[in-house]
Amino acid sequence: ADMKLKHDSEYVIDGKIYGLPEAKVYREDYNGPAVVGDYLTQVPNIAKLDYEGNKTHDVRMDVFSQKIEVAPGVSYSAWTFGGSVPGPVLHVREGDRVIFKMKNRSDEEVTITKPVKNGSPFFQQVQANNYQNNQPVINPMPHSMDFHSGTVAAEDKWRTISPGETIEFEWIANYAGTYMYHCGTSSVLMHTAMGQYGAVVVSPKDGYPTDKDVDHEYVLVQSEHYLEEAAEGNYIYNHGAALDRQPSHVTFNGHVAALSDNPLRANEGDRVRLHVLNAGPSGTSSFHVIGAIFDRVWYEGDPRNEWYGMQTVLLGASNSATIDFIVPEEGIYKLVDHEFADAERGAAGALIAGPR
Amino acid sequence: ADMKLKHDSEYVIDGKIYGLPEAKVYREDYNGPAVVGDYLTQVPNIAKLDYEGNKTHDVRMDVFSQKIEVAPGVSYSAWTFGGSVPGPVLHVREGDRVIFKMKNRSDEEVTITKPVKNGSPFFQQVQANNYQNNQPVINPMPHSMDFHSGTVAAEDKWRTISPGETIEFEWIANYAGTYMYHCGTSSVLMHTAMGQYGAVVVSPKDGYPTDKDVDHEYVLVQSEHYLEEAAEGNYIYNHGAALDRQPSHVTFNGHVAALSDNPLRANEGDRVRLHVLNAGPSGTSSFHVIGAIFDRVWYEGDPRNEWYGMQTVLLGASNSATIDFIVPEEGIYKLVDHEFADAERGAAGALIAGPR
Amino acid sequence: ADMKLKHDSEYVIDGKIYGLPEAKVYREDYNGPAVVGDYLTQVPNIAKLDYEGNKTHDVRMDVFSQKIEVAPGVSYSAWTFGGSVPGPVLHVREGDRVIFKMKNRSDEEVTITKPVKNGSPFFQQVQANNYQNNQPVINPMPHSMDFHSGTVAAEDKWRTISPGETIEFEWIANYAGTYMYHCGTSSVLMHTAMGQYGAVVVSPKDGYPTDKDVDHEYVLVQSEHYLEEAAEGNYIYNHGAALDRQPSHVTFNGHVAALSDNPLRANEGDRVRLHVLNAGPSGTSSFHVIGAIFDRVWYEGDPRNEWYGMQTVLLGASNSATIDFIVPEEGIYKLVDHEFADAERGAAGALIAGPR
Ligand SMILES: [Cu+2]
Ligand SMILES: [Cu+2]
Ligand SMILES: [Cu+2]
Ligand SMILES: [Cu+2]
Ligand SMILES: [Cu+2]
Ligand SMILES: [Cu+2]
Ligand code: NA
Ligand code: NA
Ligand code: NA
Ligand code: NA
Ligand code: NA
Ligand code: NA
Ligand SMILES: [Zn+2]
Ligand SMILES: [Zn+2]
Ligand SMILES: [Zn+2]
Ligand SMILES: [Zn+2]
Ligand SMILES: [Zn+2]
Ligand SMILES: [Zn+2]
Ligand SMILES: [Zn+2]
Ligand SMILES: [Zn+2]
Ligand SMILES: [Zn+2]
Repeated sequence: ADMKLKHDSEYVIDGKIYGLPEAKVYREDYNGPAVVGDYLTQVPNIAKLDYEGNKTHDVRMDVFSQKIEVAPGVSYSAWTFGGSVPGPVLHVREGDRVIFKMKNRSDEEVTITKPVKNGSPFFQQVQANNYQNNQPVINPMPHSMDFHSGTVAAEDKWRTISPGETIEFEWIANYAGTYMYHCGTSSVLMHTAMGQYGAVVVSPKDGYPTDKDVDHEYVLVQSEHYLEEAAEGNYIYNHGAALDRQPSHVTFNGHVAALSDNPLRANEGDRVRLHVLNAGPSGTSSFHVIGAIFDRVWYEGDPRNEWYGMQTVLLGASNSATIDFIVPEEGIYKLVDHEFADAERGAAGALIAGPR
Repeated sequence: ADMKLKHDSEYVIDGKIYGLPEAKVYREDYNGPAVVGDYLTQVPNIAKLDYEGNKTHDVRMDVFSQKIEVAPGVSYSAWTFGGSVPGPVLHVREGDRVIFKMKNRSDEEVTITKPVKNGSPFFQQVQANNYQNNQPVINPMPHSMDFHSGTVAAEDKWRTISPGETIEFEWIANYAGTYMYHCGTSSVLMHTAMGQYGAVVVSPKDGYPTDKDVDHEYVLVQSEHYLEEAAEGNYIYNHGAALDRQPSHVTFNGHVAALSDNPLRANEGDRVRLHVLNAGPSGTSSFHVIGAIFDRVWYEGDPRNEWYGMQTVLLGASNSATIDFIVPEEGIYKLVDHEFADAERGAAGALIAGPR
Repeated sequence: ADMKLKHDSEYVIDGKIYGLPEAKVYREDYNGPAVVGDYLTQVPNIAKLDYEGNKTHDVRMDVFSQKIEVAPGVSYSAWTFGGSVPGPVLHVREGDRVIFKMKNRSDEEVTITKPVKNGSPFFQQVQANNYQNNQPVINPMPHSMDFHSGTVAAEDKWRTISPGETIEFEWIANYAGTYMYHCGTSSVLMHTAMGQYGAVVVSPKDGYPTDKDVDHEYVLVQSEHYLEEAAEGNYIYNHGAALDRQPSHVTFNGHVAALSDNPLRANEGDRVRLHVLNAGPSGTSSFHVIGAIFDRVWYEGDPRNEWYGMQTVLLGASNSATIDFIVPEEGIYKLVDHEFADAERGAAGALIAGPR
């Protein structure tokens, strides 16, 4: 980890930095881009780490509501980080420091799809997303941010802020892996089911052993949706169904067709790497690629948790795995939650492989 | 793996062969034995690999319907591979090649229990099965075959064929482990729940470290059944229950009493090896043997995924484990899914141990 | 293991002792303390192993009923080991021998909270428990004891005894790890859901690699409760809900507020060790500590199953993990089953950390 201690409170155990300064909550007159940061992308994309050594990242993800489509004819007023479900993928390296800022703009109409000055690469990618094309909604609500990648006092950094407030805090990427982030405001079941989750990929300092052979790298976030129709095409969250673990939809990357309409791409003979996060909020995922076997699985993304030759990897709620597989032939490879009740509810996608 | 490349399209990565020729679909005038192959058995049996080095296996498993009993007084018209649920166990060695043929005979009455010339050892074993004794049913339906043990383009090899058609393709056992096979025709939830699944055991080239101490070796396939009564004793598949993950029965080897009426056998002091596959289609299994602790668990059957001293192993849908345990004393050892809602629905069996 | 074979029937494989003598079932005129043993505590406590080498433990846990509170205003007549839900935590070392005695006193009123001569440290700790304060209930019922930590013939040692009977048997802690114990009398789903489960911690002979750095050590037992209101505040077990896997409550250590009203304690910079057991009876647990990352996870408690840097550990029904994490800052750390449908039903608690 970055041994340069930047604050008086900081201390080091096993090369990891703890004891970060208290979060600041304040009001700012800000209506700039809702997502700021060079290493923020929309799923399934992941930013390239084009720097050596450790870095301090200034990251902003504002909270606001957007009308989001989950399946054809099924839209709801989502609570979002940065205007998309899942929220932006943040990519950093083990040991990096993140200075994070989030304004609760749930009481504003916020525009996301137009790329903006100082905005993140995330914006161009959202524009290509057919299902999440900037339909702002006002829905004032307290919210918060909990990064599983951070080791901090939650009741300080992950604290709930009101509409109009901004929170600012730091965290260190002490442990490599792929992590969930989500709103931790009660009911967490509701706030995550409403759309407030995403992935942080913390690449290990010394990489994974197959890094040099990887041809394509993608991020997948699985999640359940608990929706019921309120009016023609307009759906609302169903808390009873969420408590009973009866999802209406289960998706990869937020839409039942996200990865069929826009499949992942590779070629025969390629080594493909997937960072798969099961965001829940409650179910497990038995992740499988039809026609492939996982050559390597790094459970939770830690290179020391290395497993081999797996047909399927089981992920609990907020578990992840970093997976390598060889694309055996030109063709179409379906990705599924092999819990077929969930695949049938939408947890399916595709990778299309061209010739060698 | 077998480095002798047999087809122009083949290529090798890390000693594994990819790029197999296109599947062939044709009509053949065939009414011979529905299961052909020397290394095919009925659960819980597993064939002995009585050859050195690599082998090319010619395997046939035809698809057709049979009336199958799942519990006393509960029968349904199953869709089957080879006439049994689960289908035949195929045993090969890492690096072997399988030339697979399957005729969709769902429009025919097919007889299975009588051993036939050129038939598989599978047939003798089915005869000893009280619950699956040859009651042919005609139920014309498109079907397919997806071997998790194969690394191929699924939309080619695992393609759906119509009644009367035969498909032929090859796959290489590139990775050791115990794998699910199943029909991949939509709705996969329905086709697997109807009975179309089974296990392939790919023994590792260099074996498992305790191979020389193993006294008995068995295969267990857990699965859920979603049945409702249509007429006295006659049950049909309930898709709503399958989507809601509310099984009517959960079984080991296809019947709630399969392993109680015909328990596994061993003796005090024996090392018993189980290849356990959870075929789902949706649930997890918390596999446990009452009175024993798993000395070794090779997760997904890969010898590199070696765990120790486990009371219970958790399997996602289409996960497997190869398990060793010592039989501590003469007596009866119950096998259960320790998710007791499922044990109570039938996921239980027994091993009976004689004296040392 | 302890190589001193104490009975003619005993034998050794890989340093583990098998072949223990037959259980004895008899009637005794006993109305002394219901829990006897120096290494028995109430969750979240764990006894210190203040001896060198191997030990033979004489342990008693009688069975009887108690009115137990699961949530504010929700009490039921629990079937218990030793009068608490979960039952006492037993701590032994790998290789130790346990001589276990259990009287089925379900036909008696048994008092537990007053410390008694020859009683266990367990009693003082139960006195501090607000929810389980000695409200005896008579509920005659056959019961049994199944220790997952023992390797024995279950139909002998784990056999069911009637009210008024005592069973006595031995088991050897052949494998390190944290294990479930429970009543194995049919319906096991009902007997465990009624309260008959607890944890045995078998510390490895050579310890875990971080032992010398551990500051605090606790035991957590997660379980589901399937209760419905029968009369004002009086709840009864709902077998249909248990079969359908629809818990009314999910708890850590037996009460939705057990670990909020009496949080775990540590300080900033401490290494905290948790032995987490998911007792089910049916559900999985995606165990997570909000604000922390698990530095080490020994799956099932075996030091050879060492994983790293995990945000969440997935436990099947009767799986366990021994977990180390660093407390990053002064503050409050919530423990949750990150399957938020279950967290919302009560699977949540807290650790409070003081300053360094
Ligand atoms: Cu929120
Ligand atoms: Cu979380
Ligand atoms: Cu089929
Ligand atoms: Cu499959
Ligand atoms: Cu009992
Ligand atoms: Cu058990
Ligand atoms: Na990690
Ligand atoms: Na799932
Ligand atoms: Na494998
Ligand atoms: Na199960
Ligand atoms: Na163990
Ligand atoms: Na759970
Ligand atoms: Zn700073
Ligand atoms: Zn929120
Ligand atoms: Zn490529
Ligand atoms: Zn060929
Ligand atoms: Zn089919
Ligand atoms: Zn034997
Ligand atoms: Zn003795
Ligand atoms: Zn009982
Ligand atoms: Zn302390």
